[in-house]
Order: sequence, then C-alpha cells, then structure tokens
Amino acid sequence: MRSYHQIDINNKYAKDVVLILFMLVVFSFCNTAFAAETQQQKPTVKSTQKIITGIVYNEKHEPLPGATVIIKGTSTSTTTDFDGKFSIASGAADIILIVSYIGYADKEIAAQGSNVEIQLATDAVALTDVVVIGYGKAKAKDITGSISSINLAGTKTQSVVNVGEAMQGRAAGVQVISSGEPGSNVSFRVRGTGTIANNNPLVVVDGMPLNGGLNQVNMNDVESISVLKDASSTAIYGSRGANGVVIVTTKRGGTKEGSTLTFDTFTAVQNASNKVNVLNASQFASLNNDMLSNGGLTPNPLWTNPSSLGSGTDWVGTLFNPELMSSYTLSYGNKTKKSNIYVSANYFNQKGIILNTDYRRFIVQFNSDTKINSKIKFGNSIKMAHDIKESGAYDIRSTLLANPTQPIYDATGNFTGPTGNPLYSGDIENPIGKATTVERSTKGYNLQGNLFAEINILKNLVFKSLGGVEANIWFDRTWSPKYSWGSDVQTNSYLSQGTNRSITILWDNTLTYDAHFGAHNFNAVVGSSSQSNKYDFLNGSIQKFASDGTQQIDNGTLQPTVGGNASEWAIMSYLARANYDYDGKYYITGTIRRDGSSRFGQGNKWGWFPSGAISWRISSEKFMEKVTAINDLKLRFGYGITGNQDIGNYAFSSSYNTVLYNFNNTYVSAVVPTVLPNTNVKWEGQEQFNLGLDASLLDNRINLTVDAYVKNTNDMLVPMSVPVTSGYSDIYVPSINAGKIQNKGIEFSLSTKNLVHDLKWSSDVVFSYNKNKVESINGDTPIITGSTGLNSSISLIQAGYPVNVFYGYVTDGIFQSQADVNNHAVQMAGSNTATSTAAGDVRFKDLNNDGIINDKDRTFLGNPNPKFSYSLNNTFSYKNFDLTVYLQGVYGNDIYNANRMYTESMSVANNQTTATLGRWTGAGTSNSMPRAVYGDPNNNARVSDRFIEDGSYLRLKNISLSYNFPQKALGSTFSSVRLYFSAQNVLTFTNYKGFDPEVLANGIDNNVYPVTTNYSVGLNVGF
Amino acid sequence: MRSYHQIDINNKYAKDVVLILFMLVVFSFCNTAFAAETQQQKPTVKSTQKIITGIVYNEKHEPLPGATVIIKGTSTSTTTDFDGKFSIASGAADIILIVSYIGYADKEIAAQGSNVEIQLATDAVALTDVVVIGYGKAKAKDITGSISSINLAGTKTQSVVNVGEAMQGRAAGVQVISSGEPGSNVSFRVRGTGTIANNNPLVVVDGMPLNGGLNQVNMNDVESISVLKDASSTAIYGSRGANGVVIVTTKRGGTKEGSTLTFDTFTAVQNASNKVNVLNASQFASLNNDMLSNGGLTPNPLWTNPSSLGSGTDWVGTLFNPELMSSYTLSYGNKTKKSNIYVSANYFNQKGIILNTDYRRFIVQFNSDTKINSKIKFGNSIKMAHDIKESGAYDIRSTLLANPTQPIYDATGNFTGPTGNPLYSGDIENPIGKATTVERSTKGYNLQGNLFAEINILKNLVFKSLGGVEANIWFDRTWSPKYSWGSDVQTNSYLSQGTNRSITILWDNTLTYDAHFGAHNFNAVVGSSSQSNKYDFLNGSIQKFASDGTQQIDNGTLQPTVGGNASEWAIMSYLARANYDYDGKYYITGTIRRDGSSRFGQGNKWGWFPSGAISWRISSEKFMEKVTAINDLKLRFGYGITGNQDIGNYAFSSSYNTVLYNFNNTYVSAVVPTVLPNTNVKWEGQEQFNLGLDASLLDNRINLTVDAYVKNTNDMLVPMSVPVTSGYSDIYVPSINAGKIQNKGIEFSLSTKNLVHDLKWSSDVVFSYNKNKVESINGDTPIITGSTGLNSSISLIQAGYPVNVFYGYVTDGIFQSQADVNNHAVQMAGSNTATSTAAGDVRFKDLNNDGIINDKDRTFLGNPNPKFSYSLNNTFSYKNFDLTVYLQGVYGNDIYNANRMYTESMSVANNQTTATLGRWTGAGTSNSMPRAVYGDPNNNARVSDRFIEDGSYLRLKNISLSYNFPQKALGSTFSSVRLYFSAQNVLTFTNYKGFDPEVLANGIDNNVYPVTTNYSVGLNVGF
Repeated sequence: MRSYHQIDINNKYAKDVVLILFMLVVFSFCNTAFAAETQQQKPTVKSTQKIITGIVYNEKHEPLPGATVIIKGTSTSTTTDFDGKFSIASGAADIILIVSYIGYADKEIAAQGSNVEIQLATDAVALTDVVVIGYGKAKAKDITGSISSINLAGTKTQSVVNVGEAMQGRAAGVQVISSGEPGSNVSFRVRGTGTIANNNPLVVVDGMPLNGGLNQVNMNDVESISVLKDASSTAIYGSRGANGVVIVTTKRGGTKEGSTLTFDTFTAVQNASNKVNVLNASQFASLNNDMLSNGGLTPNPLWTNPSSLGSGTDWVGTLFNPELMSSYTLSYGNKTKKSNIYVSANYFNQKGIILNTDYRRFIVQFNSDTKINSKIKFGNSIKMAHDIKESGAYDIRSTLLANPTQPIYDATGNFTGPTGNPLYSGDIENPIGKATTVERSTKGYNLQGNLFAEINILKNLVFKSLGGVEANIWFDRTWSPKYSWGSDVQTNSYLSQGTNRSITILWDNTLTYDAHFGAHNFNAVVGSSSQSNKYDFLNGSIQKFASDGTQQIDNGTLQPTVGGNASEWAIMSYLARANYDYDGKYYITGTIRRDGSSRFGQGNKWGWFPSGAISWRISSEKFMEKVTAINDLKLRFGYGITGNQDIGNYAFSSSYNTVLYNFNNTYVSAVVPTVLPNTNVKWEGQEQFNLGLDASLLDNRINLTVDAYVKNTNDMLVPMSVPVTSGYSDIYVPSINAGKIQNKGIEFSLSTKNLVHDLKWSSDVVFSYNKNKVESINGDTPIITGSTGLNSSISLIQAGYPVNVFYGYVTDGIFQSQADVNNHAVQMAGSNTATSTAAGDVRFKDLNNDGIINDKDRTFLGNPNPKFSYSLNNTFSYKNFDLTVYLQGVYGNDIYNANRMYTESMSVANNQTTATLGRWTGAGTSNSMPRAVYGDPNNNARVSDRFIEDGSYLRLKNISLSYNFPQKALGSTFSSVRLYFSAQNVLTFTNYKGFDPEVLANGIDNNVYPVTTNYSVGLNVGF
Repeated sequence: MRSYHQIDINNKYAKDVVLILFMLVVFSFCNTAFAAETQQQKPTVKSTQKIITGIVYNEKHEPLPGATVIIKGTSTSTTTDFDGKFSIASGAADIILIVSYIGYADKEIAAQGSNVEIQLATDAVALTDVVVIGYGKAKAKDITGSISSINLAGTKTQSVVNVGEAMQGRAAGVQVISSGEPGSNVSFRVRGTGTIANNNPLVVVDGMPLNGGLNQVNMNDVESISVLKDASSTAIYGSRGANGVVIVTTKRGGTKEGSTLTFDTFTAVQNASNKVNVLNASQFASLNNDMLSNGGLTPNPLWTNPSSLGSGTDWVGTLFNPELMSSYTLSYGNKTKKSNIYVSANYFNQKGIILNTDYRRFIVQFNSDTKINSKIKFGNSIKMAHDIKESGAYDIRSTLLANPTQPIYDATGNFTGPTGNPLYSGDIENPIGKATTVERSTKGYNLQGNLFAEINILKNLVFKSLGGVEANIWFDRTWSPKYSWGSDVQTNSYLSQGTNRSITILWDNTLTYDAHFGAHNFNAVVGSSSQSNKYDFLNGSIQKFASDGTQQIDNGTLQPTVGGNASEWAIMSYLARANYDYDGKYYITGTIRRDGSSRFGQGNKWGWFPSGAISWRISSEKFMEKVTAINDLKLRFGYGITGNQDIGNYAFSSSYNTVLYNFNNTYVSAVVPTVLPNTNVKWEGQEQFNLGLDASLLDNRINLTVDAYVKNTNDMLVPMSVPVTSGYSDIYVPSINAGKIQNKGIEFSLSTKNLVHDLKWSSDVVFSYNKNKVESINGDTPIITGSTGLNSSISLIQAGYPVNVFYGYVTDGIFQSQADVNNHAVQMAGSNTATSTAAGDVRFKDLNNDGIINDKDRTFLGNPNPKFSYSLNNTFSYKNFDLTVYLQGVYGNDIYNANRMYTESMSVANNQTTATLGRWTGAGTSNSMPRAVYGDPNNNARVSDRFIEDGSYLRLKNISLSYNFPQKALGSTFSSVRLYFSAQNVLTFTNYKGFDPEVLANGIDNNVYPVTTNYSVGLNVGF
C-alpha cells in the first residue's frame, strides 16, 4: 500500500490534521475492532435464544456480501459477510427472516438452525435502479435528492469521442457542450450557469475526483454514470459540489463467475454538418470593385470584367475534408468468489475534418478486487492514458476571408501569399500554408490509480480506506518554419517546447454503518478526505535555425526564452451522512461536510456545508391502495448549501510579478504586486431548494421524474471596486465574494414502454427548463465576459439580466437614401459618402434619443442561455434487430455569430460570405445587408443585433440500426456478435447560419471548430 | 548521533512507525478467520473408445497446464491444456502413460478410458531448479549453457536498496559494483570487462528489456533472477547479448489457490564503514607553517604556537552522519484455476550518510493472469515507480581539504568562508555551506507495463504475443542561492530545471513447440521482437532572483538559457532456438538471432548471431551405474557469437553542432560536423567458448558447477586514427570496429548441505577467476579512460595490458639529502629548494635511463581488475532460528586512490590526512611521505604508484539472525511471522586506506560516495 503519511500537504497545519485524523481513525477503529473480536469469540447469547446461521446466494449460487437479514417483527438485524454468511440470534419460537439486497427482490423465509440457504432472485427492474451516489450506493427507490443516472444502453452504438459526448441530452438539467476539435474535452453545465468562475461540475471517476479530462476514460470501460444535481446530494462534496457532481464508475470483471473476452470497434466517416458559402473569384472581384468605388478608391484595373475570373480558389473546401475516426477496444475479465479482474486496452484514432488536426489515444485500464478473507478486501483501479493531439494552425475565419483570386500554390509548388496592392489582394496569410507547415502538438501521459482496502469491522460496519494518485504530464511543441509567401515573410524559424506536470494525491477514509430494526432502516457514513495537487511547468523557445531539418532547441541560435512556475492546492474534508426511513415510506437524509481549503484566506479556510432532504412515498399510504394505476409515487424535498472553490489557487493572496526597471541607468529587478490581496476570499457559496416527484404508472410501464429547483449563488467572486465603463478591466482590483446569481428551473424525465411484445418500443423523454438571472455583482459596472479582437465587448454580466447577456447596438434597417440619413440621429458625421454615413449603411437606433449614436445607445440584445433543452430517444427491437432514433435539441437561445463581423463587413479586400450578394446597391435593394464600402465608415460591423441569430436547433443526434447475430450462427467460439450502422448529427433543423449551432456555452461563435456529422459501422464481439 | 529515536509528530520516522502500527493493528484484529476455501470441481472429460482423456493435477488438485504426457514405448505424446486436460490416442492394449512437468517428479501410470486423474508430486529439489532463460523456461538439469540462477533465500534478510545489490557475490562470474549514494543504480560486469563502451548486461524484467534502472523494481516482488553468461545462452539476445543478460521475473499471485496478504519491513541504521582521518587544527597549522617555510614563504604569524589551536572544526564529521533507511511492502494476491492477481506497494526511504543526500521511492506492481478458456490466456505485468533523489551538493574531497581552523558558522550563524591570506586560509568553499544551501533533486516517474496473450494453437504449439511500454520521465532541478561567505561570493542565485522523457515500446511474438517421441525430446521456439525508443529533453536556467523566496524560473531575470534535443533507436529481431535431447543423456541446442538496428550504418544494419551447445550426462551412462557417490555428472560445451550494440545511437553518422561565427561583423549561424561519419560502424562482435561441468555428489548433498570460458571481443569500437600521445583525444576522429579484448576465466559454484538434522547447515561457495587483456586497439596510441582534474591520465586502454591499466611514474623512495638529488636523474632542475627538487621530495625512477624524469618515464602501474572474487554463504537453522553468515571478497585488484593526490599533496593551504604527520622532515624521517613544500615544485603528487593501493578485501557482507514465530503462537490471524536482525558490511579486512574498497569498476577512487555499513531489524508477516 502506498505510504499515505507521505501525502505532501505543504500546509503544516493541514499535515497535522491529517495525522491526528489518521490516529483517531486508527484508535477508534482498534477499539471497535477489539469489541468485534470479543463479540465474535464469545457470542453472548441468552440461553433461551437460538442462533440461526446461513448463507445468502443469488441464482448462480454466488454468495451475496452485505445483504440485510432481519428477523421479522423485531429490530434484530445483521448483514452478510464477504462470503455471504450471516448469523443472527432470536428468542422467538417461529422465526421469519426478511432478506434484502440491492438489485434483488426481498425474500421472507421461515428459518431454523444452522446452514440456512437463502436464494434471492434478481429483480430486473431493481437491478438497473442501483445508483452510485457520493461515497456510496443506494437503491433508486430510496433516493431523496435529485440524481440522474445515465442510461448507457442507448450510447453503445453512438460513435462518440468520449464519455462526455455520450452524456449529451441523456440527463435532465445537464447541458453538455462538445466541440468537433479532435482531442477536446466537453464542458458541462448542471442546472444553468451558476458563476462567472469555473462552471464545470466535479467529475469523480472510480472514487477519485478527476483532475485531467474525461478523455482519459475509455467509454467501453464505463459501468455507470450518475449526475448529482441538487444540494442534498452534492453537499457531501461540500465546497466542490456547487456545480453538480458527475460520478463515473468503471467495470470490474463481469457480473457472473467465469472469464470474458470482448472486442468492440467502430469506424466512422466524419464531415462538416454545414458549410458556410463564400464568394467565388468573380463575385469577390465584383464586390471588391464595388467596395473600393464606394470608398472613393480605384478598383483593380485587372478586374474590369469580374466574371472572367471564374470560380477561383476554394480555400474552405481545401481546409475541410471528410476524414475517418476509429476506435478499437479489447477487454478481458474474470470473476470468482474471491477475486475480480478487468483489463482493457483501447486505441482511438480521429483525423479531424480540418487540415492537420488529429487525435490519437491509448487507454489501458486495470481493475481488480481481492478478498483476503471474510473480513478484508483489497481492490485497485488503474487507468493509463497516452494521447497525442495535433491541433495544427488552422484559422477558420482567415480561410473564409482568403482571397479566391489567389491560388494556393505558385508555379513552383510553394505556397502563395498576397502580392501587389493590398486593396486588391487583401492581407490574409495563406491559411492552407499555415495549416500545412506549422506543427503544434500536445502529448499527454496520464495515470489515475487507486488502491483501497475494505475491512468489515463488525457485521454492519465497514471501514474503507482508499489512496490514489493522478499524474498528468504533458508536452507541448510548436514548430513554425521560416517562409516567404508573397508579402508575408517570416524571417526565422521558431521552436517552442513546454513540459507540464500535475500530480494529485488523494486519501479517503470512510466508515459505513447499515442497520435495520424492524421497519426502521438506518444507514450512515462518516469519513475524511484529503487531496492535494502540485502543478508546475517549464517551457522554452528559440528562433533562427541554420537548417529547418534540425528541429531541436539545441539547434536554435536566436533569442532563447525560458519560463517556469508552480502552484499547489490542498483540501481536507470531513463528511457525514445519515439516512433513515420508516418502512420505505418516510425518509429523512442529513448530510454535512466540513472543508478546509488552501485556496482561501486565513480565517476563511474552513467551512460547513449542510444539507437535508425528506421524502414521502405516497403510494405506500393506505388511501392509495385502491389507485392501482399508480405503482409508485414519491415526493421529495431537499435543501442544502454547497460551495465552488474552483476560483484559482491564490485568489486570497497577492500575486507578484518580477519586473526590471531602470534606476539611474541601471536595470534593477523588483517584485511588484499585480493583484492586491483580499485575505477574506472564500468559496462561492450556493443554496439550493429542490422539490421532486417520482412516479411509476400502469404496471411500471411509465416512469416519470419531475424536479423543480431554485439555486442561489450568493458569494460569487466579483471585482471589488468599479472600473471605468470603457470595457477596460483593471487587473489590480482584488475580488470579493459579493456576486449573486439565481437559476431556477424545472426538469422532467419520462420513460415509457410503449410496446412490449414481439416488437418492442420504448421511449425516453428529457426536458429541462432553466431561467438564469444575475441578481447582483456588487455594483453597476458590468463585467465583460465575451469579446472578439474587433469589437471588444459582446457579452456582459449585469445585475438583472441573464449571465453573458449580449450587449450592443440595435439595428433598424438600412438607410435607403441620403435623406433617410439626414433625418436620423448622427452616426458618422460628414458629407463624403466614402468616409461618413451614407445611403446603404445600417441605421442604428438612437435609444436615448439624444440625436447621436454612441456607446450610450447600446442595450441588451439577446440571451445565450437556452430557455429549454430536450431530447427524445426511441428504441425499437424486433427479433435480432434494434433501431435507435435519438433526437436532441435546445430552444430559445441566441448565438452571436462573431465570424460574420468579418465575413459580412465588406470593408477590406477579404472574401465574404454569399450573404453579401444581397447587399444594398441602391434604394430598395436591401433593408438588411448594407452597402460595401472600404473602411466601413459607418461601422456597420459594430456589435449589434445584426449578428445575433436564433440558436435553437433540433437534431437527429443519432440513428442506429443493430443486428445481433443469433446464438446458433455463432458456434462455440463467440458468445455474442453485434453489427451496427450508426449516423450522428445527421439531420439538423435550425435557422442558424454558421457552421454548427453547438457553439461554446457563452453563445459566441468566434472561429469555433464545428461539431461534425458522422456515419459509422461498428462491431461488438464477445468470446 | 542524531536523535532519531525520539518520537515526534513532525518527525518523518515517527510517521513511518505510525504506518507500521496502523497496518499491523488493522490486519491483526480484523483477520480472524482466514478460510482458504479451495473447492475442487470435478473435471468433465468426454471420452471415446480409442482415446484416453484425463487431467493432470498437483497435490493441491490444481490442474497443471503444459504437462507432457507420453505413451510409454511409443513416440506418441501430448501436452495438457490450460485446464490441465489432455487426450491421447493409442491402439495398444496395455497403455502406460509417462507424465512429466517442470518442478514435479515424473509419474508412470497404467491408464484406460476417460477421466484419468493423474496427480504429480512436487519434487522439492526440482522445484527450485526451474530456470528462466531467454524467451522461455527450462529445467536446470537440461541446461546446456552457463546460467546462474540467484538463490534469493539468502537475500531475504539483507537490508539492501535494490535488486542489484542483493545479487552481489551471489553468482559466479558476475561482478556487482554498488555505490553508497542514495538512489544510485548498481553496475554489473559479467565475466570481466569486454569493451570500452557500455559493459552493463541487458536486464530483462518480466519479458521486457529494461531501459531505466533496477531501482524501479521492488526486491520483495522478485520471484527469480537468472544471469545468462555464455554465448550459447545469450545468443538468443543477439546484438544485445555480449555483456550477458540478467533476467528478473516478478511474483504472480502465489503458488497455491487462495488469497495471500503479506507485510515486509525493515529499518536500518547506516554509517560509513571507514573514516579517513584528517589533521586537526593544530596539526594543520603546523603542517602549513612547515610547507610555507619550505616554500620560501612566511608562515602565518598567528600560528607560531600551533598546539594552541586545539582540534578545530571537524568538517568530515559534520558531513557524515549515521542515518536511517527503511522499507515497507504490503502485497496481496489471489490464485484460482482461472486467474492470478498479485498487487504490491512499496515505500522505501533512505537518508544518506552524507548531508542532504536522500532517496525516497514508491513502487506499485500489478500482475495478473486470466484464462479465457482452454485455448486463450491473457496476462499483464505493470510496475509503477516514483522516486525522489536529493543528491545535494556535497564534495567529499573538499570536505577533507577544508581548513580546520575555520569554523563552520560565523557569530551571526551564517556560513563562513576562507578569509585573509589564502596561503593561510586556503581556498576551499565552505563544504557544509554548499551541502546545506544548494538543492539538487531528481524526481522520476517510471512505468513499465506489458500485456500478453497466449494461444494454444495446437496441443503442443503455443503462440504468445507481448506488447509492452516503458515510460521514464524525470525532472531535474538545481537551486543555488546567492551567498557571500568570506572571500567566496556568488552574486546571483541560479535556478536550473530540466525534463527528460524516454519512451520505449516493445512487441514480441513467439511460437513455442514442445514434443516428446519416446526418449526423443524436442523443444523449439521461433519469434520476432521489435523495440524502439525515443528520448528527448528540455532544460532551462536563469539567474538573479529578486528574492530567494521565489524559486521559480519566471522570477529569474538574467541570462536565460534553453536547451533541448532528442534521439531515437529501434531494433528489429528474428530469433529461433531448438533443443533436442535423447533420454536426458545427450543434448544439443542451436540458437540463432538476426538483428537489425538503427544504430548501425547502411549495409551493416543487419547481422546474424548464432550459437550452439552440446551436453553429455555422463552419470546416465552404463559405466557410471556403480559409482553411487555421483548422483549427477554432466559435461557442457558451447560456442556462440553475440554483439554489443550499446555504443551510442549515432556512431555511424556525422554529429553536427550549430555554431555562430562572425562574418563581416555579422553573426552567422552554421551547422558544422563534430565527428566525421563512419557509415561502416556496426555492433561490437564477440565470440565465446564455454566448457562446463555440473556434478551432484553424495545423495545430492554436494552440488558443483565449474565453467571455463574464453570470450573474445573482436569488433570493439575504437578511434580510427592516431592522435598525439599527449593525452589529448581528438574528438573529430570517427570510430571503427577494430579493437580486440580477451577475457578468460574459471568459475566455480559449490553448494553443500553440511548438516541436515536438527541443526541444519548449508554452504554456498562462489569463486570467479577472470583474466582480462586488450589484444589490439588498432594502433599504438593508448586510449585514456581514467583521469582526474589534476593529472589527466591515470588509466589507459593499451594493447597487451588489462583494460583500464594504471599508468604513471614509479616512485623509489624519498631523497634523503641534496646529494641524493644530485646523483639522480633530473626531476625539477634548480638549486632553490623552494622551487626545485630537494631533499624530502619523491624520487621517481628514470625508466628509460636518459637522465631526465619526464613523460617517457611513465609505465604500467597496476590493474584495477580483480584476479578473482569469491563469496561464502553459510546458513544455519536450529528450530525456529536461522543464522546466515555471508562473506564476500575480491583479490588482486589495485585501486588508484585519487583523493590522496589532494589530501597528501602538502602543497597548498588545504587540510591533509593524518598520514602526512609522518612526512619527511629531515634525513631518515621518512622514505615514503615526502616533505611539505608550497607549490610542490617536484610534483610529488603526480600520477604514480605512490597512490596505488591493494584493493583486495574480504568482508562480512551480511550476518543475520532470524526468528520464525511458531505456528501455535501466531493463532489464526497470521500464517507466518519472522523477525530478524541483520548487519551489512559490518567487518571488512582490507589494506585499502580510503573510505571503502568498493569503488567504481575502473578502480579510481575519486570522490566516490562510500558504501555503508548498516544494522537493521526486519519483520515479515504473512496473514
């Protein structure tokens, strides 16, 4: 076992705490162990009492450890040991045992004497209803909080890149934002945007909070995924629970005794789901002539007949290409009474649809469990992942803007550059040349591993200690050769390399107690968790290489740079949870966590995070007995306080920079503060109310879950004082916990079994409504959250509005005549139509009616947060065929299509989208697309509602058809073979004009790598 | 002595104690009922009329896969499958089966029908006699080559740092050179020094050639170690076999069905085995006065009464301190019919006996095997190691030379430096200050893992495919703060960081065929192996930190440097081996490997490496039947050709450097060659003859193995042309394969069971004689291999002499008078005794009788290679006690004690050893230790036989006493408990005057970290 005492929490006092806790655990544990020992050696049984011993099996005669055995009508209960054995004493004459176990139907049996054998039958419904929760498992029917358990069945035929993508649309209240870029990790929003800091939920994989990305996990290894959403379920994660918690567990060697070997593969062809059309060479030349004439400049004399130029270069078509993606997983496992083994190896290879982007990944997983004896069990989970990401040097926007009259290559095969007058040629560096010659790669080496021991101290008291380590080491490299492409010259080659290391150590200790006294069921867990992380990096760059063939730092000769730094954090936690229910009818749960974090200032390091929930199974009440249509009906209410500590490692302290300054003509170095300290900084606190209802109707063929919540972030970290409104954010200002954001919403999950005979049809409907509002940001000055290089502020955080609300000017059509211009508020004054507002320019609304269009005429333009999101999954089975049709969509969100600020600006010699073909060329020609004019004197391309589009979409996320080969066709070699065809993102209904409506969570489409469509064929083989 | 016995919550050792307590307490109280339930299932064997089917078991009813079943008197044979089952057909009426399996006694059984159950009994002798060989295993009795199998039993109570140290003296012909430096890896010589390139053998761990060091392997995980020595056994490793092969295999989950849990620990106190005594303050002052007077300079006026200075500062005693070393291993495992699991975790912590040197290591090992069905088996071996080595900034020689009149700290607690006149104070930077303030660390992250599949294609044909990866990533860091210690001033702090990455990938495929036809036994393996490695590094440094508290690269401000480079190699191999024996009497083995390596030039990339061996079991002949004293007698002869490809990655190609040169006042960079290419470079070839004899006498109580060998390295890489003899080696000269080295020797291993009753006594004697001679180095100019900063050439490679022969002047006593000087050849001419040779100086022999002592009077002075090495291990057992007494020694080697060139030079104001108290102070006072004289005008300290010492030693390497607790005292919780006390290197007989006679293989003791003595207490607990 790893020497946990070496866990390096630099905070000395945290170290002592670990040690003290450790000794407390050990000593308390020894005492109880002594007690246990005594009890076991001399069973104190009254002479009138009988001892019943026995064993609890499943249908395969595998013993069931941890099953509950209760003597009916009494409070006497016990739990089976690792070998499924139990012994229980009673003075009664006729004894009836009630035996229950998660995933199995309860059984009552009249028992006498020793060697009672009790066989439980699996409960098909119940089996899928075990839910992994924080620091434990629970039966779905006993859950008091709001937890979504992802149905993985539907994802098996989806050719997705990682676990996160597979979760998209599968859980109410969980928004998954993916990117088409090979090797990118998804980001999540659980129940809306709750902070301007990190919104991603805590991801726990095999008991360890994951520091790296979900790309480290092989989808084929995943056994279950739960999303904890409300505070009553996340409070056990305390200061890390505010954004929700995603819990992923991996496979551990099969469900029955014996060995297994499986092979899973798919290959997919990917393509862009939509293509943005740009002008061809003759259209571009025509536009350019128009633009220059309107700008008072001389058009290109060579382009007097634009149509002679033909179609020209298809830059976009060269950057985007259909490419393959494939995945191969071989896994084997073995399960015996004493041990489990699960080993898998995965190779994933994705070539991106954009030139020179690709991703390759190797994941190996080793899980095992070993029972040493009836009291002690050891286990381990190890994931090793190596990935190579080539992110290239593509620039989608530059490619859209590239001059179609310029070829890609010159006569000698070299890349071209813009030549001649930039008014005609533009200034776009050859985007294909850049994407081809610049090399940019990241190679990652990731290990996440843990070892744990479980000790049955008493029959119903289990001590578990888990030690784990996550090591993420990655290497960056950028090589940019010297070149001379037309007017674009890079004199020196450039090489930059970097190394990053992040090491996380975890040590968890829990005591779990489980007891049943008659109808009283009690379950409790207490524990501690300590985690620490060290991160550091080293990078260096150098220029000018004697030869481009020797691409090593040692061969560079000019301007060496070196950089490096390190940071650390540590968190120490104590947690406790108690569940009580009476007869499965009335439930009460209380959770509390105390967290101490290095991230917060002295005096604010420690905090309490309590939560509570109650639940009432109405269907078990007498008065419901006659309502046969309702099989189960449960009301839940929960409230709790959680935190978000993901606000940077040193927000409470000063940051210092080393600077060189000139002192009497000598350079002197000094350490100066960059941010003033606010030692009061603490986690962002959040309170959440949840009211939920679970219902099963019509012989369990309809299952419904509805949740409504109010989530108040009360201590969001916001800047302390108010900078000027210009948009310049003063970095010297410290932050304080004073912001408030509210999210409230309703979630709805419905599962139905529509047809259950030869043709089976089941449906899953997920619907999430969320309303987001910034309540306060400690002042009136908005915080700018979205910007582009061109116009800096696009979206804001402003009290009274949703998070990241779009902000800018309001358009009011196009000036059709100079008279129109003169009658309107002044936009750009002047009489020269080439340098001031003229007919054909956009008319912006004078919101404050002061006769001048300026900053003060900006307003709130749109909301990037969807009103609601929804999905509908239909599964049809007939004989050996399965058909899955999965629809997913969002509604009511706006997208700021920032690319259009460039591709529809018509102000320089850049190519533009075909939308500009409908530009204003005279009165009445257009009331939406302005004139082309060099320099855009009216600033038609300013941030305005002109570029805001409806982001709603409904897409056929996946449709797949599987064929399961019949057993008789397989012979003895194979146990199962499934062949499937699947299409992903194949049909999209949207009004959005960009590449794809799935953009970043902030709703700004600024050079975003589009999500792809893919068609795949896959094979699952079991031996 | 440090007070490490105090229990202190902040003391690391105290935490270690807590850890042990925790583990012991936890497991002792909770492990009450260890019930190893081994259920035997009846095999279901189908039968037909003509076929005999059955199953082969061991005594524990575990099936034995791969057992050989032969029908007696026929050539019909088969092999059992993974489940131990076999089926064999015969037409005979009475059938007798002969069943054999490695480690078990053969069994003959009359068989009929189906479901024949055959139980083999373990053969206690045979069990230990399974030897792991290249790409397979063999019975020791069938071995035709020279292979040493390390007896690990004796190492269990040795408190050693790594696997290499445990091997020291355990195998004939294998020299292990260890260092006392924490975290250092041992180096090996198998059968002498065979090359001037890398002499280390190939180390194969769990089927993978190890790229990193043996420090990655936990000694407690090791199941077996074999050393392949002769060409007939190493040729299967082809171009990597020339230096011998060390094969290490790790545990895989126990030998019997069930679960195991073990805990092993030891704690040792280490100390220097010898201390070099230096002058105290008054002796130093006296010497300094003497030296300055003789040098014509004014002695320190403050030191007119040296004895008043007392003892002064004990620099050496401050640098060296007794320190603790401890190791903890927890391992668990499980074995079933279908699967094995072995998991272990080790923490090792060694504080070096030199200030601020230490080593901490964590190793986790995961091995598992899974049988999918009777045809397919999967397995994996994974080692993960993390180590932290603090190598500090100690300088043993500077510490010896430090001025004892100078205190360590000044009145304000700061470190002192030499102050005042350097003739009195010397120029040694405060060595304790350096060792205390400079931080130098290496943090390593190592993974060695493989996955393999074995497929039984036919009953006796097994295909195995193994894929593995070794990742070694390590981070270096040096921090050197600015300081001002007396006259030693470092103006700027300095920080240097580096990252190194080495990734090795292996893919091996083998087909193994095993057949037995009557007395004809045939075994063959063919396969391929491909391995490739990429290594790269990135480093950077920066100076001048505004504050020494911010030790990050980003805080440095002056002179950034960046460095980085990469290298690669790959090897592709095809291999085949066939063994045939007739009735265990006549053996013939042929092996061939074809290697292609990236390291060699075009046209030389591929080479063949064949070998063959024959063997004759004389004892099986009729005429030996009556010689009952001889149980076994076997003669072996082998011959083969192997290679050494460890000669650098690019020896065949040009090396280039990028340089900046000034061209018309402009700096221009260019790539210039540093070494001219020799594209003919290939592996160093070696041929080896081996003649061996194995004998067992007197009821196997005496086992003897004798081997004699001649090993000719024929293609050693040496410089192509002849540089000047000055000792300057021209780096522009390419190398060619033209050197020749011969090693010949005799090895002898004797194991005896002296007493076998209540008191058991067994002995192991190992003796190795090797003679080493350089035959040719393609010219007369010697290659300089050893040098110090002071006098550059100490040892040479020269044809006709042993490798690394010492070279220098021959002393002939001390000149007792000026007349003596005048009568002798001129050493340093002149009449001023302060600046020329005078009475009291060393008389060097005028070997060429030319009247002048100069370079031409140098000759060969000594041989660093031992004539022979030997060891004697005695094990005594009485009831529950075991006593091991292990003696080890070498004889006949010389050591060049280079430290003495400084510590006995008496030429500057540095401290000297107490040997200089006997210096020449007038006629007749000494004929060995010269006068003290400033500047050493006669160069008394030149490289000469004055500093050559006899390196022979005999040491009590280990003595240990173990107590095995009787079973009845252990109760049901423990299966075994052993407590032992052990002492390592506790007694040494040697004439060597330095710290320790175990120096580097080149025999030069130049600031070598000495091997330590240690006393340990250890505990092995099985649950």
